[in-house]
Amino acid sequence: MSEQSKHDDTENLETFEDALQTALDAADETQLTEMVDSLSSQEALRQVSLMEPVDRDELMTMLPPESAAELIEEAPAELAVTMIKSLNSTVAAKIMEELHTDTQADIVQDMEAQGSEAILAEMETERADNLRILSQYDPDTAGGLMELEAFSFQIDQTVGAVLKRLIADDSFERHRGQHPYIVDESGKLLGVVSLRDMLRSRRAVKLADILHQPISVLPETSQEALVDLFDENPFLGIPVVNASGILIGVVSRIELAEAELERAEHDSLARQQIGDELRSMPTLLRSRRRLAWLSSNIVLNIIAASVISAYEETLAAVIAIAIFLPMVSDMSGCSGNQAVGVSMRELSLGLTRPVDLFHVLRKELGVGIINGIVLGILIGIVAWVWKDNAFLGLVIGMALAMNTLIAVSIGGTVPLILKNFGIDPAVASGPLLTTVTDMAGFFLVLSLATLFMPQLIS
Amino acid sequence: MSEQSKHDDTENLETFEDALQTALDAADETQLTEMVDSLSSQEALRQVSLMEPVDRDELMTMLPPESAAELIEEAPAELAVTMIKSLNSTVAAKIMEELHTDTQADIVQDMEAQGSEAILAEMETERADNLRILSQYDPDTAGGLMELEAFSFQIDQTVGAVLKRLIADDSFERHRGQHPYIVDESGKLLGVVSLRDMLRSRRAVKLADILHQPISVLPETSQEALVDLFDENPFLGIPVVNASGILIGVVSRIELAEAELERAEHDSLARQQIGDELRSMPTLLRSRRRLAWLSSNIVLNIIAASVISAYEETLAAVIAIAIFLPMVSDMSGCSGNQAVGVSMRELSLGLTRPVDLFHVLRKELGVGIINGIVLGILIGIVAWVWKDNAFLGLVIGMALAMNTLIAVSIGGTVPLILKNFGIDPAVASGPLLTTVTDMAGFFLVLSLATLFMPQLIS
Repeated sequence: MSEQSKHDDTENLETFEDALQTALDAADETQLTEMVDSLSSQEALRQVSLMEPVDRDELMTMLPPESAAELIEEAPAELAVTMIKSLNSTVAAKIMEELHTDTQADIVQDMEAQGSEAILAEMETERADNLRILSQYDPDTAGGLMELEAFSFQIDQTVGAVLKRLIADDSFERHRGQHPYIVDESGKLLGVVSLRDMLRSRRAVKLADILHQPISVLPETSQEALVDLFDENPFLGIPVVNASGILIGVVSRIELAEAELERAEHDSLARQQIGDELRSMPTLLRSRRRLAWLSSNIVLNIIAASVISAYEETLAAVIAIAIFLPMVSDMSGCSGNQAVGVSMRELSLGLTRPVDLFHVLRKELGVGIINGIVLGILIGIVAWVWKDNAFLGLVIGMALAMNTLIAVSIGGTVPLILKNFGIDPAVASGPLLTTVTDMAGFFLVLSLATLFMPQLIS
Repeated sequence: MSEQSKHDDTENLETFEDALQTALDAADETQLTEMVDSLSSQEALRQVSLMEPVDRDELMTMLPPESAAELIEEAPAELAVTMIKSLNSTVAAKIMEELHTDTQADIVQDMEAQGSEAILAEMETERADNLRILSQYDPDTAGGLMELEAFSFQIDQTVGAVLKRLIADDSFERHRGQHPYIVDESGKLLGVVSLRDMLRSRRAVKLADILHQPISVLPETSQEALVDLFDENPFLGIPVVNASGILIGVVSRIELAEAELERAEHDSLARQQIGDELRSMPTLLRSRRRLAWLSSNIVLNIIAASVISAYEETLAAVIAIAIFLPMVSDMSGCSGNQAVGVSMRELSLGLTRPVDLFHVLRKELGVGIINGIVLGILIGIVAWVWKDNAFLGLVIGMALAMNTLIAVSIGGTVPLILKNFGIDPAVASGPLLTTVTDMAGFFLVLSLATLFMPQLIS
């Protein structure tokens, strides 16, 4: 199997899955390691996530810890936790030791205390203690994003010492282009040294003589503030110090970019009413999590439907209305969700803030009037032609026109209002919007129909 | 205004907007520059995007080109293009010269040929020629993502020459931690030198003697392949060579991370039926773009509604059904969209591929059966209690149970099928799913109601 290329076509992949299973059943460690290493980390992870949990655990146990750790680094957070959690704690600890400290901290943070303590107990004491500290920071702060491995030197060391370390190990790549940070004997951050100044100086020069005032952040610094800082400075890393000025870690530009991607994904998942679900999770868990999102929808739907219930007489008289109720509801929902989408985007880009409520409302009213008229006329013509009744067209068209205006106004502003009250707009905007536009849409269609009843039934 | 702090509260911000407008009306360049520089780039961009286009153009013209360029770098692509496009081409060219080459290329690519040529003609000839080349690459390939500014040296140069350049300018930061790339006189990439090897060598050592075989990519290399490469290698940059092996640019890890974020955003916007709209765009353009998305919805809605139309007699007999039609349609839509969301996520993580269709279907059927039964019982009880008719509860409950199963099966698989046929699943999955689940939902409710008619009207 060693001639297996990295770019398999579909057929080879099926064979590959079977061969992997065979090697697993035979507990052939060498063969398994070779097979997994022959794949890109993404493809290897895909194979692992297609496996039954018991097979996955067996594979992770048999792989060398470095290879297993590569899979964990590639996995989305919730899968990484599941993969580690279900392993024997000795094996898990060995794999954990091979991970970046920020991945380690994410895993410890997402596990229950009991499970993580079993693994931490098997790890080197100092590293475990560090991890316990690191896992207490909020994941979207500098503390949660930082790595503990700072590229740091004592104030009395020389340029030669830094160059020696750069030569001796793979510090530069491992530290993702960090500058050397200079600390005193208590670990307090005193400054930072540029590569340029080091290269310009003799090896005997003391770091104390060429250090610059560093830009540093506290562990509580928010992800947004970090994005701003990295936008304004070209650095690849920013040191994190505690309240006493002690250097405790470094946030890298790359780690931050990855965190931004995760945040965008989280928002997108919340808008789609799912959490961080993966199909490799147990069915019952997936059902329960989806039902948790859906249960609020049932209640909101009942509220919206009660509007229809109040107009049963009108409906009974003009049954054709029932055809257009879901259409008006769906079209207004779509219009409103477009406005929600633009607001969510502008909020995340920092182009809109809750104080811009009236600016947004004014802008949405403009679009709402135009789109309301266009969509109203279109659906009005459809209703008129379909049911051969001009007044039906008028009722449905007017209702959709007005409801489009309502939908975009609410859709544009509701994320700002929710954000202002500290509610996650990605989670709540959609369901709230849909309920209001459904109620308003049903009310408009049915009350206009009641008003025009003589013309409609003639 | 110079004491204006970076962290204004709401009140100060309003004052700030007024002061900015005053400075703009007075054409006070110094004051304007000072005010814009006092803000974080994000906040400065927000102020600019709140302005009327004519004021924005005036401000961009009065700012020093470096400050204007910072705003452009911060802006999302479509806003950056708009901001450059509406400027006088001499001013635009000056600002363009201050941008990263990849931002320049994005802008040239997104402008019509006529507009971009006017600007390119005002730029330095060689730079303009490079840009013309760069803007021809697909944005999600190595060619589209690379910067032209490679940190490159001739094969006959020495370690000393590299160190000298590192000392002389801000190469290291500007090249975002790139390694020095070594080329022959024709520009052909011969190798790469590590910082470690350079520091270990005397300054007189020829680069030829310490170079490594480089990992390089062709300009056509896809974004996915680059993600894999950076996952497997610790480098901060990967050189791009053309078919003859000539070094033409470098893709940086940071640029790639930003492109990944943009791609995630694009998918998310498409799912919400919007493009890259911002409220600073003209109202008519925003209307037209939203209507383009909505127009297909109208057609799909009419198709779905025609199912209701076929059962008008049933509806007329049991008018209460009309209350539950939008509920069944909405609930099934939500369930289906959850399944779409999980598939989209697994596709983008590389955990699922179109070949996994039956695996996904099997997994979704599991969730669909459980959630269908739970939701069906819930809505069935609601219908029974509300309308005091057990058979109505049975009809609505059974319909929702079955339609939930249909919705999650289609929702889970449709993104894979669309992807297999080369259709963007982010764009088409939602509307397609909603139409099918609406039709199936209406059909199930109304045909079951027809079947149980004697019991329903008794």
